[in-house]
Amino acid sequence: MQPATLSWEGSARAGLARVLDQTLLPGEVRVLEVRSLEAMVAAIRRLAVRGAPLLGVAGAYGLVLGLQGNRAESPLDFVARTREAAARLAAARPTAVNLPAALRRALQATERAVLAGRPLAELPEVLLAFAHELCAAEVAACEAMGAHGAALFADGSGVLTHCNAGALCTVGIGTALAPLYAAARAGKRLRVYADETRPLWQGARLTAWELARAGLDVTVITDSMAGSVLARGLVQAVVVGADRIARNGDVANKIGTYPLAVLARHHGVPFHVVAPLSTLDAGCPDGAAIPIEERAREEVAAPGGHELVPPGVRVLNPAFDVTPAALVSTLVSERGVLAAPDERRLAPWLS
Amino acid sequence: MQPATLSWEGSARAGLARVLDQTLLPGEVRVLEVRSLEAMVAAIRRLAVRGAPLLGVAGAYGLVLGLQGNRAESPLDFVARTREAAARLAAARPTAVNLPAALRRALQATERAVLAGRPLAELPEVLLAFAHELCAAEVAACEAMGAHGAALFADGSGVLTHCNAGALCTVGIGTALAPLYAAARAGKRLRVYADETRPLWQGARLTAWELARAGLDVTVITDSMAGSVLARGLVQAVVVGADRIARNGDVANKIGTYPLAVLARHHGVPFHVVAPLSTLDAGCPDGAAIPIEERAREEVAAPGGHELVPPGVRVLNPAFDVTPAALVSTLVSERGVLAAPDERRLAPWLS
Repeated sequence: MQPATLSWEGSARAGLARVLDQTLLPGEVRVLEVRSLEAMVAAIRRLAVRGAPLLGVAGAYGLVLGLQGNRAESPLDFVARTREAAARLAAARPTAVNLPAALRRALQATERAVLAGRPLAELPEVLLAFAHELCAAEVAACEAMGAHGAALFADGSGVLTHCNAGALCTVGIGTALAPLYAAARAGKRLRVYADETRPLWQGARLTAWELARAGLDVTVITDSMAGSVLARGLVQAVVVGADRIARNGDVANKIGTYPLAVLARHHGVPFHVVAPLSTLDAGCPDGAAIPIEERAREEVAAPGGHELVPPGVRVLNPAFDVTPAALVSTLVSERGVLAAPDERRLAPWLS
Repeated sequence: MQPATLSWEGSARAGLARVLDQTLLPGEVRVLEVRSLEAMVAAIRRLAVRGAPLLGVAGAYGLVLGLQGNRAESPLDFVARTREAAARLAAARPTAVNLPAALRRALQATERAVLAGRPLAELPEVLLAFAHELCAAEVAACEAMGAHGAALFADGSGVLTHCNAGALCTVGIGTALAPLYAAARAGKRLRVYADETRPLWQGARLTAWELARAGLDVTVITDSMAGSVLARGLVQAVVVGADRIARNGDVANKIGTYPLAVLARHHGVPFHVVAPLSTLDAGCPDGAAIPIEERAREEVAAPGGHELVPPGVRVLNPAFDVTPAALVSTLVSERGVLAAPDERRLAPWLS
């Protein structure tokens, strides 16, 4: 069974979100009780809760928290306060589209309820119902991605992945890792190579943890070893998730994804992206339009709190990079499998 | 002035090597007094002294230490003991050819001295003289590589480098960084991007330290950011050193070098290798024949001593990878500049 990344306890008016603190894994499995919008924003910012699909769900429950105990004077006032809360949550992290998309849909659900004449007292339940529905839809999307994608991975093959696009980035069995779990369930033996994923080690800490916990064969490598592992013929496919996919198929994902796509192409190995439809951004024409989060210097300069880079030396820390659609062999979503995704082929998934 | 990585103090019979402990940089500049062969082997193993050309010099002085106070009963016995000491030093690290090559040449110098009738009492001085000559030759080689290579880097351009192939890997101004120092002396302004170089952070700790100390503009990135930095057009050349170059031009260098070569090719950016002739291995036909050192699990699994990879999860830690000659745009040595090096073009440098 997958780890419980996020769950809700209680009612819309007096509830709390239980969030697995992913910054402490694998050393400690601690569940945070998140009781306010501010606490949810903080949990998102410091990556206690992370991963594009999970961020969407966290945003939806964050809205419920933000409107708990609110003193809206009318349904329209409730909508205005929901919009305000959504803006604060959306600002927590800029790159994954799932967060603002979920917040927009939650807001729309509230607006529709108000237009349909639902009384003020019921509006918190509307928000909570939306969050629960989103949660269930994402669980189902993970299962569907697993089922669609499993055929891409042959028994006995090696698979390279980056960052964590597993159960820990969703409320289900993951995105990029979902097909691996599905393949394993079907009896295929896979060897998974997990890039450690500097600067925050989501691969070493999270992907290794959840794959090993599920009984899959996993080996951790530094990001710099991917080329060598490909050159040695150990890998027959690369699979990653996505934080935002533009209309033309360009993929923003964790920094270090793009070089893997180039290496995969160089070695004639397929490069698969697995992401729910909620990661597609119809409003974004291409990768150049995707905002890339720049994170704090110390994540690079002081790994584990120990300063390695000499003081005064500049550091870059973009959290994501963009892989051009032309380097993506296959896109898998809950809708199915799309080979060589481009603007034309993606269009049906965007409508 | 470059940092003093290694120097000798005293006579051949009662001397010691002063070695800058590179594991403590940039936080602490500590000089070790190395007084025995065992201490030199330990310093090499734990990377207190590192970098292919510097390993050769360290090996030569290590031999002097190993034969200090020896009780050889005859010149031939001295030769036998030298051979034994050389074997122990050579086993300290397997990939850089400079170490065994320097040891072999030191042994040959001793053998020649014995054949020429030099008495037993003078043989330690023969070893020390060889080490001093090697040291001087490597200093001169660095200067020559700097002079030959400087023209490869245009004023105002961005240069990406990996690991540390600077003054700290030599007794001079470095290999890959020598042309950058020479270009800077000539008034060119370069922007250097230094890969942090997991697992041991030689880029973040050493390259950043020595470049900043010398007044060059340096920015540290994680290894996974190189693709993004190239895609953003920030880099006009990639330059690295080498630990061993095979007869066909294949280059073994720090793990993570090969993916940079693939990325450079993908972006149409030249990939330069700068290494003294002592790094060429005429006895090695190609990259597949180069022994690749596999280092300890904890370097990857427990960065800074803090265990990140879950217990029981496998880790790979090859310290080097191989870049095929076809991906090398230019090879620079003290002999000059060779475009598109291959077996035929390299041959004159090997004879």
